[in-house]
Amino acid sequence: MSLPHVGSSVDSKDDRECERPISTIVFIIAMDAEALPILKRFNLAEDSTFFPGLPWIRYHGLYKDLQLNVIWPGKDLVLGVNNIGTIPAALVTYASVQALKPDLIINAGTAGGYMSKGADIKDVFLVSSVAFHHRRIPLPGRDSYGVGRRQSFSTPVLSAELQLKAGVLSTGDSFDICPPDEAFIAANNANLVDMEGAAVAYVAGLLNVPSIFLKVVSNAVDGGKPSVEEFHQNLAVATSALDRTVAEAVDFISGKCLSELSISETSSVGSTRLS
Amino acid sequence: MSLPHVGSSVDSKDDRECERPISTIVFIIAMDAEALPILKRFNLAEDSTFFPGLPWIRYHGLYKDLQLNVIWPGKDLVLGVNNIGTIPAALVTYASVQALKPDLIINAGTAGGYMSKGADIKDVFLVSSVAFHHRRIPLPGRDSYGVGRRQSFSTPVLSAELQLKAGVLSTGDSFDICPPDEAFIAANNANLVDMEGAAVAYVAGLLNVPSIFLKVVSNAVDGGKPSVEEFHQNLAVATSALDRTVAEAVDFISGKCLSELSISETSSVGSTRLS
Repeated sequence: MSLPHVGSSVDSKDDRECERPISTIVFIIAMDAEALPILKRFNLAEDSTFFPGLPWIRYHGLYKDLQLNVIWPGKDLVLGVNNIGTIPAALVTYASVQALKPDLIINAGTAGGYMSKGADIKDVFLVSSVAFHHRRIPLPGRDSYGVGRRQSFSTPVLSAELQLKAGVLSTGDSFDICPPDEAFIAANNANLVDMEGAAVAYVAGLLNVPSIFLKVVSNAVDGGKPSVEEFHQNLAVATSALDRTVAEAVDFISGKCLSELSISETSSVGSTRLS
Repeated sequence: MSLPHVGSSVDSKDDRECERPISTIVFIIAMDAEALPILKRFNLAEDSTFFPGLPWIRYHGLYKDLQLNVIWPGKDLVLGVNNIGTIPAALVTYASVQALKPDLIINAGTAGGYMSKGADIKDVFLVSSVAFHHRRIPLPGRDSYGVGRRQSFSTPVLSAELQLKAGVLSTGDSFDICPPDEAFIAANNANLVDMEGAAVAYVAGLLNVPSIFLKVVSNAVDGGKPSVEEFHQNLAVATSALDRTVAEAVDFISGKCLSELSISETSSVGSTRLS
């Protein structure tokens, strides 16, 4: 079922966007290990004035005609561990959009993959839709709200150019997956799981900013190996594969307007929306 | 184990706060039904300029020497249901603090209560600490981050004056409680559960704003009755009890500085912190 766009100005915004190329991109990343290769590749510099007192981190720089921003929620000020999960991702996405007014959000990072659904280690996916699997609200109307399925900004031209696999991403706030989570992941028809994507999509939809999701498989959810060990074992090759895809995506996006990434049917043009 | 305060300026801020009474209070509420009695009591007016285009709602007004703000995340723009859960609560708390610079956040609302732990219908609790029960990250260091336990701003003077029960609140993004949630709620030693509190505490801690939590029991988690029916059955009496407590709290706070609500030991004075 396709529901109306979130926000009312999508079509008019797209018409406007076509008049000028994409200028500012905000990459939302979960962890520094995922960000590092991208920072190096584009020689980005840290912005020490980015929300002083908060752990959030921004690196930025110009590449061709693009203002690139790589942003992540940093580390917990007391515990020193990465601020993973939906709440920091939502907050830093919100603050970044308000501060930088990007034309496009790219949520890039690692994900767990279901090998039984075609997601193998190092595969990079362009996500078609995202949903939550940890928000169970079994009440009429609220169930859909909890699941929060949103279509990402449709970019089949980018997908074809980069020859990316198409994925469906399910997001939860836990590293492990309990049986109710598993049931929701199955109902979401997801082949990828992460801990941030649907939160980024929620905020992008709220603020009417087109968002896409590049996810690389770092561990197999259904591979029978402990997720943590496999994640660490594959982190370097996975982030390296992601970095190459990000570079290709940025090169492809450069000089193009939003509509040049998407298909011509207006039904799929626009910002992240419920579907 | 008591960990350092989140943020570094807590003591100096409290010293400063003691020089002047509390001026601006932000109430963070989850749903309009919980807000309504408070809006009526204080004759608050809607701020139609509050984040235009977003569903967030602010009512405000002067009461005695206090600038009162009652804020909630409003309704989903597509589905029309209340934006419950941690992500909207975190976002609206963040945006409200940035916009209004409150001296104190009060998260007020309904909660599920464990009768076996002394939480009966209509009981109003002042929460001593909050934690999450839906963020399972079984990795060293990350487990504590996931649980995210935070002490609320200590206000024993207020608690004694209003004769409030002391509660421990556990927050999750689901309306139902699955076995892993239940285990975390038990480990959190909670007698109250809601879907927002720990997210409000996280943001309050991040932004170094003292926060307290007034929760009224609307349904018994362990009472054997369906939660939804019981919630709706008790909503009016519960929000009415909460409203009376809010009124007493506001009257008590009026004219006082932060330190007059708290105990004299500096270890418990300050903003929301990890413990």
